[in-house]
Amino acid sequence: MALLVQKFGGTSVGSVERIEKVADKVKKFRDEGHDLVVVVSAMSGETNRLIGLAKDIMDEPTPRELDVLVSTGEQVTIALLCMALHKRGCEARSYTGGQVRILTDNAHTKARILEIDENNIRADLDAGRVVVVAGFQGEDESGNITTLGRGGSDTTGVALAAALKADECQIYTDVDGVYTTDPRVVDSARRLDSITFEEMLEMASLGSKVLQIRSVEFAGKYNVPLRVLSSFEDGPGTLITTEDDENMEQPIVSGIAFNRDEAKLTVSGVPDIPGVASKILKPISDANIEVDMIVQNVGEDNHTDFTFTVHRNDFNKAKAILEKLCKELEAREVKGDSKIAKVSIVGVGMRSHAGVATTMFEALSKEGINIQMISTSEIKISVVIDEKYLELAVRSLHGAFELSEKPA
Amino acid sequence: MALLVQKFGGTSVGSVERIEKVADKVKKFRDEGHDLVVVVSAMSGETNRLIGLAKDIMDEPTPRELDVLVSTGEQVTIALLCMALHKRGCEARSYTGGQVRILTDNAHTKARILEIDENNIRADLDAGRVVVVAGFQGEDESGNITTLGRGGSDTTGVALAAALKADECQIYTDVDGVYTTDPRVVDSARRLDSITFEEMLEMASLGSKVLQIRSVEFAGKYNVPLRVLSSFEDGPGTLITTEDDENMEQPIVSGIAFNRDEAKLTVSGVPDIPGVASKILKPISDANIEVDMIVQNVGEDNHTDFTFTVHRNDFNKAKAILEKLCKELEAREVKGDSKIAKVSIVGVGMRSHAGVATTMFEALSKEGINIQMISTSEIKISVVIDEKYLELAVRSLHGAFELSEKPA
Repeated sequence: MALLVQKFGGTSVGSVERIEKVADKVKKFRDEGHDLVVVVSAMSGETNRLIGLAKDIMDEPTPRELDVLVSTGEQVTIALLCMALHKRGCEARSYTGGQVRILTDNAHTKARILEIDENNIRADLDAGRVVVVAGFQGEDESGNITTLGRGGSDTTGVALAAALKADECQIYTDVDGVYTTDPRVVDSARRLDSITFEEMLEMASLGSKVLQIRSVEFAGKYNVPLRVLSSFEDGPGTLITTEDDENMEQPIVSGIAFNRDEAKLTVSGVPDIPGVASKILKPISDANIEVDMIVQNVGEDNHTDFTFTVHRNDFNKAKAILEKLCKELEAREVKGDSKIAKVSIVGVGMRSHAGVATTMFEALSKEGINIQMISTSEIKISVVIDEKYLELAVRSLHGAFELSEKPA
Repeated sequence: MALLVQKFGGTSVGSVERIEKVADKVKKFRDEGHDLVVVVSAMSGETNRLIGLAKDIMDEPTPRELDVLVSTGEQVTIALLCMALHKRGCEARSYTGGQVRILTDNAHTKARILEIDENNIRADLDAGRVVVVAGFQGEDESGNITTLGRGGSDTTGVALAAALKADECQIYTDVDGVYTTDPRVVDSARRLDSITFEEMLEMASLGSKVLQIRSVEFAGKYNVPLRVLSSFEDGPGTLITTEDDENMEQPIVSGIAFNRDEAKLTVSGVPDIPGVASKILKPISDANIEVDMIVQNVGEDNHTDFTFTVHRNDFNKAKAILEKLCKELEAREVKGDSKIAKVSIVGVGMRSHAGVATTMFEALSKEGINIQMISTSEIKISVVIDEKYLELAVRSLHGAFELSEKPA
């Protein structure tokens, strides 16, 4: 008999039929005796429809009013889900963010949760009701409606779980868990029973977009056990938890993430003097271009090469900036390549195992794949390679680290 | 420089284009220096769409959740209208019913307004902002969202006007005012510059469905000057006000209302003894059938005829009840006619003018129209006639009372 917070995203509540399916699932858990707080998103397509209406009026709608507008999406879903639960003889009550009250700052369209008043919810749970909460929204100190930004329903779920000290926060999505890598690339990719928050953050930011990064950070910070499950099939999903959990798998490498949205830029023959890195990167960040990997080699003859990656959409803009800068820096030349991909191995086990990098590089070398850049952190090693080798690289690494098999 | 409450219905805000037109209109009034509180309905069709979603789940959706659902309709409109005003450089702020706060009882889907907190609105008006309020909704003491029932946006407008002691409550609709009768029946029907609350109530309940009856009652009770205008054209509309207003037209008859939704039932040869009327009507009201006109003639030979009208949809049901009852009452027979129409002349001037009924009956007689029933109140005379003479009757009465011409 646990207290569970369950979050269902837009696809899971995308039609009346699907809302009825969610109600079936919630009812099942309720019948098993669990206390339930259910967080829902807007029906898929609804938020975009509402934003479309606003954009028909003005290109940059007033943030306060945009929040008033889009927050109606979740409000529709909470009402419909409660009706579907009532139909099943399951007592339930809906709450908007403001009704809970989920207090946020007043940064409209990207507000942060400051405090959650758990009293109303607790009273309903004690009375045997399922509590259905609108995700993605709250209100500020003055009672203005705020939203947490896209994907914010995950954050609502985690924040509620933290406030209520729930046993688990379950995020229902259209995938049945977190995989060792993308199953569309590697047939034998395996669903992980568990993964650490840190690994999940590395996987998510590298392209395995199962969960909103902010909600994973939040769950990690407040130590809320997070589980990713499928809305459409039964199954245990993947539990995201802290490293010291005793049930935790401890493989060396947990998964392979990849990303083909990047492009590489090199300024070569740069005078190797203090301050040159910031001289190169400042105009890039001033132009609002985000930089991912940065590599600078040991120089020769007082000159060095400076390489970094940016989102492929920013490639031309960044290249133009660097070319202008080249003369000023007395650098030799600017080279760029937008046909690259980044592949990373991620795993907390790396910390205590030597030779992980060697295994990775050998696997790639065996396939004749040249490594263009390397970057490492405590729990991940990323390499940049020619884009055309991406699938081959992922498959060979998946095999080399035996990810298809469950660790002993 | 007046304080005006302006209410725009669903048709007036039925699309982004129309919302922009409303913003133009509001801006114009603001530029003239008026303080404005604008009440809006849901975009036309939206409330029905939402109710449709609920009905897909259950035939009788939980009232509390139905209110959570349908109240999103107006919330969308307030946000969009504020954006359209901002686009025009006009400061504006939106309020849901709960944010105002419009306190209601907890009779979900048909709540009554108990109290309006005017402080937030007043502060915004003082700061030079247009205040945009979601019609049709409020919240109860516990913060649950409530709705006032269909057409409740008019009530919100009037209630806000009363609370703020506004100079006028302007109801924008798709007609440009209240007419002496339906212009589709009488070409020369004339827009009235003004009409009393009492006349308006008689006109509205008789089929001139320009305003929700409840809002007219409310306006009368709190003495809020109410004006009906067109959203789509400029014009003075019709002012609905108290009789003693000096600008008031005082014709004998203000307008001709009619209704073809009724049917007539007669129980004839009923023993003329005390209590017989209630014996006939009780089973009818027990079956939830509303009775409109009731006429009982002076009896002969201790027997009388008892006639009443019901909505045409209830005709068969009511007839069956009476036929069952006929024996028990020892009445002679039950007769019914569903091909009737009711025509009424309405006017506060009747009170002080004799001969109005005579003029009416003569006009009908001149056209060979037989009067089947007569019923009178202080400010109206209604007759039931054969349905086929309806248009002829309305036109002849409109002429007989010279309604096409403005009174001196």
